[in-house]
Amino acid sequence: MTNHISKSDRIIDAAVKVIANHGYHGAKVTAIAKEAGVADGTIYLYFKNKEHLLIELFQAKMGLFIDYSKQQIGNETTAGDQLYQLIESHLKQLSADYDLAVVTQIELRQSNLVLRQKIGEVLKPYLNLIDSVVKHGIETGEFDKDLDYRLARQMIFGTIDEVVTSWMASGFKYDLMSTLPSVHHMLKKGLT
Amino acid sequence: MTNHISKSDRIIDAAVKVIANHGYHGAKVTAIAKEAGVADGTIYLYFKNKEHLLIELFQAKMGLFIDYSKQQIGNETTAGDQLYQLIESHLKQLSADYDLAVVTQIELRQSNLVLRQKIGEVLKPYLNLIDSVVKHGIETGEFDKDLDYRLARQMIFGTIDEVVTSWMASGFKYDLMSTLPSVHHMLKKGLT
Ligand SMILES: CCCCCCCCCCCCCCCCCC(=O)SCCNC(=O)CCNC(=O)[C@H](O)C(C)(C)COP(=O)(O)OP(=O)(O)OC[C@H]1O[C@@H](n2cnc3c(N)ncnc32)[C@H](O)[C@@H]1OP(=O)(O)O
Ligand SMILES: CCCCCCCCCCCCCCCCCC(=O)SCCNC(=O)CCNC(=O)[C@H](O)C(C)(C)COP(=O)(O)OP(=O)(O)OC[C@H]1O[C@@H](n2cnc3c(N)ncnc32)[C@H](O)[C@@H]1OP(=O)(O)O
Repeated sequence: MTNHISKSDRIIDAAVKVIANHGYHGAKVTAIAKEAGVADGTIYLYFKNKEHLLIELFQAKMGLFIDYSKQQIGNETTAGDQLYQLIESHLKQLSADYDLAVVTQIELRQSNLVLRQKIGEVLKPYLNLIDSVVKHGIETGEFDKDLDYRLARQMIFGTIDEVVTSWMASGFKYDLMSTLPSVHHMLKKGLT
Repeated sequence: MTNHISKSDRIIDAAVKVIANHGYHGAKVTAIAKEAGVADGTIYLYFKNKEHLLIELFQAKMGLFIDYSKQQIGNETTAGDQLYQLIESHLKQLSADYDLAVVTQIELRQSNLVLRQKIGEVLKPYLNLIDSVVKHGIETGEFDKDLDYRLARQMIFGTIDEVVTSWMASGFKYDLMSTLPSVHHMLKKGLT
């Protein structure tokens, strides 16, 4: 029998777990290798160094997330419903995996400028996806025609992001998905 | 002539500058002392260690900010106008001082749990101030009576915070204050 999860995916999932629990700076490649069930050297065959692993991990997860969100959004015609799908995808992805939430809300916010710029580049397609929903709403007249799409995007992303951070800061005490109707309601009204 | 700025304030302002330019982890107490024009040992008379200095710095600046914001908000009667003052105070404080913006948007977001909890405690009075504006609007009927004040606060803070981060990420390329009318307009509509 072959193993259907590729080695690099196994390393990525192990890295999410180890980074969430020990912090990016505290995460040891040895611990990631152990968690993934591979030899230390194997990690370096796939990822040059820990920085590279962090970026690749974010890129891989973000790629899957964008594909999923685009599909969900594509099922809807109104910008209001597309916004709902966008918020739902974001909340769903992170409420399903606490380790992923810790990595996105804490460990991917690095002080190092070069790392921050690389993370920003990976985030960009998601921000562009938000822009496309906003622009669709402006074109159809559903949203305010005088909206600045950049500020609208910053409100949408900033709100969802803070809702996730607060949930994480509470120790995942309540159901993140239960915030979806209110968050959608407030944001939609803000744009209309 | 006496120096009207206290030594601890001089150290705090020096720390903001050095931390903004070298990062919290890269900031050396020696460099902060040099910037403040005091001996290295003097810093330790006021601040136990660098962690303590970071928290005290945030506490001191936050205290002044809250006093100022409360005064501005107190001049207004409607929740919509109070919201305007709140957003204006936040944007004004950070657009006036790029170093402060770098410290609040990057360096105060630490991975270390204990530090993060202490920073959260200092932030709390500000979040409570936002809550008071939201609750006022709900009571007067200006804002939606079914609002969850926590989610409303998360939208307000999350939006302003992301607007500031994006401005910083652009390299302070545009005028942050110019975003005030649109940000206020969107948030007010979202709450109404
Ligand atoms: C384990 C991973 C799992 C992932 C799975 C997925 C899970 C769900 C999703 C989770 C997402 C959360 C991930 C968190 C990642 C951490 C990263 C953060 O810290 S996020 C939290 C922190 N947030 C961030 O880090 C986001 C920071 N944002 C950015 O860094 C940038 O937006 C950018 C680099 C992404 C794009 O930038 P750019 O290409 O510049 O495109 P713009 O359109 O913005 O701007 C176009 C032009 O307009 C100018 N302009 C803009 N606004 C205004 C204005 N109001 N007035 C006047 N002008 C304005 C601007 O200067 C530019 O001018 P120019 O240059 O053309 O002359
Ligand atoms: C150099 C410095 C210069 C400063 C000058 C000032 C300049 C301008 C201002 C700049 C500000 C920016 C500063 C940035 C600082 C960095 C810090 C960040 O990372 S900020 C960016 C990242 N953001 C942060 O770090 C903020 C993270 N937030 C927090 O950490 C918390 O909100 C808290 C600890 C502050 C208060 O928490 P808590 O005392 O718990 O009060 P709650 O009311 O929230 O909750 C009450 C209860 O309700 C539960 N609940 C809540 N929501 C929901 C819900 N939707 N469904 C159901 N339940 C919900 C909750 O679990 C709790 O339950 P229980 O415990 O009573 O059973």
